[in-house]
Amino acid sequence: MQMSSANQLTSSGIMSRGWMKFKTMPEGLKEKVLNTYRKTKEIGQEDPRRVIHALKVGLTLTLVSLFYYYQPLFDNFGLSAMWAVMTVGVVFEYSVGATLGKGLNRALATLVAGALGVGTHYLAELSGQTIEPILLSFFVFSQAAIVTFMRFFPKIKERYDYGLLIFILTFALISVSGFREDEVIEMAHKRLSTIFIGGSACVVISIFVCPVWAGEELHSLISLNLEDLANFLQAFEELYFRTSKEGDCKDDRTALLEGYKTVLNSKSTEDSLANFARWEPGHGRFKFRHPWDKYLKVGTLTRQCAYRMEALNAQLNSNLQASPEIKRIIQEACSAMSLESAKALRQLGVAMSTMKKPYFANIHISNSKSASESLNSLLKSSLWKETDLLSVLPAATVASLLSDIVACTEEIADAVHELPSLTEFDTIETAKPPDRAQSTPHGDNNSHVVILVEDSTLANLPESKSLSDQHKTNRV
Amino acid sequence: MQMSSANQLTSSGIMSRGWMKFKTMPEGLKEKVLNTYRKTKEIGQEDPRRVIHALKVGLTLTLVSLFYYYQPLFDNFGLSAMWAVMTVGVVFEYSVGATLGKGLNRALATLVAGALGVGTHYLAELSGQTIEPILLSFFVFSQAAIVTFMRFFPKIKERYDYGLLIFILTFALISVSGFREDEVIEMAHKRLSTIFIGGSACVVISIFVCPVWAGEELHSLISLNLEDLANFLQAFEELYFRTSKEGDCKDDRTALLEGYKTVLNSKSTEDSLANFARWEPGHGRFKFRHPWDKYLKVGTLTRQCAYRMEALNAQLNSNLQASPEIKRIIQEACSAMSLESAKALRQLGVAMSTMKKPYFANIHISNSKSASESLNSLLKSSLWKETDLLSVLPAATVASLLSDIVACTEEIADAVHELPSLTEFDTIETAKPPDRAQSTPHGDNNSHVVILVEDSTLANLPESKSLSDQHKTNRV
Repeated sequence: MQMSSANQLTSSGIMSRGWMKFKTMPEGLKEKVLNTYRKTKEIGQEDPRRVIHALKVGLTLTLVSLFYYYQPLFDNFGLSAMWAVMTVGVVFEYSVGATLGKGLNRALATLVAGALGVGTHYLAELSGQTIEPILLSFFVFSQAAIVTFMRFFPKIKERYDYGLLIFILTFALISVSGFREDEVIEMAHKRLSTIFIGGSACVVISIFVCPVWAGEELHSLISLNLEDLANFLQAFEELYFRTSKEGDCKDDRTALLEGYKTVLNSKSTEDSLANFARWEPGHGRFKFRHPWDKYLKVGTLTRQCAYRMEALNAQLNSNLQASPEIKRIIQEACSAMSLESAKALRQLGVAMSTMKKPYFANIHISNSKSASESLNSLLKSSLWKETDLLSVLPAATVASLLSDIVACTEEIADAVHELPSLTEFDTIETAKPPDRAQSTPHGDNNSHVVILVEDSTLANLPESKSLSDQHKTNRV
Repeated sequence: MQMSSANQLTSSGIMSRGWMKFKTMPEGLKEKVLNTYRKTKEIGQEDPRRVIHALKVGLTLTLVSLFYYYQPLFDNFGLSAMWAVMTVGVVFEYSVGATLGKGLNRALATLVAGALGVGTHYLAELSGQTIEPILLSFFVFSQAAIVTFMRFFPKIKERYDYGLLIFILTFALISVSGFREDEVIEMAHKRLSTIFIGGSACVVISIFVCPVWAGEELHSLISLNLEDLANFLQAFEELYFRTSKEGDCKDDRTALLEGYKTVLNSKSTEDSLANFARWEPGHGRFKFRHPWDKYLKVGTLTRQCAYRMEALNAQLNSNLQASPEIKRIIQEACSAMSLESAKALRQLGVAMSTMKKPYFANIHISNSKSASESLNSLLKSSLWKETDLLSVLPAATVASLLSDIVACTEEIADAVHELPSLTEFDTIETAKPPDRAQSTPHGDNNSHVVILVEDSTLANLPESKSLSDQHKTNRV
């Protein structure tokens, strides 16, 4: 008791001394400490699950170290309990899929390599004390070389890289240790069981305490990427066609304009998330062996659309700009193309995050396509004959890239429709042929779309809409 | 002796039995075995250094396992020799930089965490047998949580992720083991020294036996990417403007056309190579702390150029094609733009791989810029007044994207000139103003560039050229 109050005194003494020290610190150092504090807060607030993950790792490690403290457990495993602690440290990853993948890889590799190692040990023992180390060295060398080479196979690397690493280690440890210790089987058994215990602790905690599912991460990443593209198109439309706005509003737009840039390099993140998601059991709307490849397909198409936006963005900052008169002529059609595509992309993104079939997206897509057609007929008309071609060039490029983006958006929509997790309320889209959509003038940002809905589908509309809203609020 | 000949008999028996088994295998399985064999051969031939790497890992692991076989060594370390084997398995990576980074991270983290762990152990011991496990648990929990959270900081994750992981592990192992074993300092010392031995073995073998330098990999990756872009432009020019060629030749072109697609997603590879390269000591032309960021800048600009190519490639496959007449009008200028840019990019790539300042690149760039200007004046001319604007649109887009690519190429050239590893023979570029270059008609693929070189610079030309050739053959 006295000791703990002494501890308290000391710790409060440390704190007040720390505060004194902080106050008398040189300015530069103080700035650094404050910056670190701000950065820490920012990272924590950006995704509070990171804090939870850190606490989960701490908890699991503490639980597993009970093997040392609790006598009956320690009697069973002895110092091999160390492997359980090591397994927790190495296997526990941010998402369930990554943890499961590493855990299974580690457990399976230890099992197979342990068995082979024990076999090798007995084989080598038969050959006598002199030849044994030579034979063991030969086995260790050849398995390490062969398995290391196997790690270069792309498909094996993708899913079993960690398992192969553990295989090399365990085989070497078990077969070589056998030279000094005779109880190889017991050693292999202890290593396997402690690794199993550590691995299971990780998996259980990562699944049952605030789980982070790689599948859901992938799902929402792709939906956010679609949102980014929509933001770009909307901001582009405002900046390109409405340059007479105030400055501070423009800053806002610039932030929205830059969003697509993260999409350009999203491939590696998406690939690894899909890779982790493959290990995950069914959760929420996703079942085990959910076809994650289809998400990667949407991701690829999203990136292709983002590449066009990169070219479009260059047009925005190019030296050669179309004259205001020419912009005014193409404005109506081009604005409609970008705004309707933006709406379609946003609908697709929202549909993904609410796990609903995107029933209005197709209408926006057909609107954007008809705007693209009206642009074509505008270009065919005689309005242009008097203008100089060089001054038309920038505008023509913008128009052409926007048509490309309209086509990309349609491909993305097709790919999103194929996603197996969105399975409801697709009656409207199939009932309404796209070319019958009509829209109000497109220049207005707040324009409402007037849709001709056939009688047979009208009955379904209110019910499905309200259900969708309900689902949305549930998820938010 | 008898035993080894018996072994030989057995192994030849196994081989012949294996061959018999292979012959009687069902067709499907035989096909699979053959496929695996072919794939293995392909991966080995693609980069023979992979085979060497596998052998290096085997060699190092075998060397380190000598600690078990050789009595005096074993007397020193005992079963802790296991940590040396583990370190080799975990730390040995393909490139020197990755191995060094992991090794240093592991050694440093073990040192710091070991010291802290020993300190914690003594601190906890003071508090008595009952409170000790509680105090230890508290320390283990808080260090694991704090360090796990630190792994989310992007800059720390980039370079010290592995070190933090090892820190968590070592701290937990040392402080918790102390509860059962009293010789904590000896344990920490053994762990540290064996890890040091394993790590040094990896570093020495990876540096002195056929080293694979991440820096050189990055260097040549970026140079190859430039080559890919050049190939695309050349193939694009042929496919877009010369459609009357035979089919088999077209297949060749298509392969060249697709090369740029690997560039689109090269960011993560480049980033990790640059990250590894930062750990590497000086080698060849690269010194320690070589400014690898400048390579990443070239990489980023290369990707931006590739995004334009993606948009250009879409034009090649678009439904809306310019009529042959319109193509013929813009052909001369557009061909020159793409071919001259291609030559400039190829020169830049060659310059990087031969580590020479690219002295002809600027000439090609100024040629492509003057072609771009002549295209602009062509567009201004009256030739166009009679044509329909819609049919001009695709050609206008191609022209505009090509101008973008010309601008990108210039930016890439500027960035390449900034690379510190290319430091010779830049006299010609600075002496010759770019706008004084004149070229022969651009339509011809084998066109030679006629350059007006000022008298003062002419004297330098032969010498520098021959030196460059010499250097090139030396390196090839």
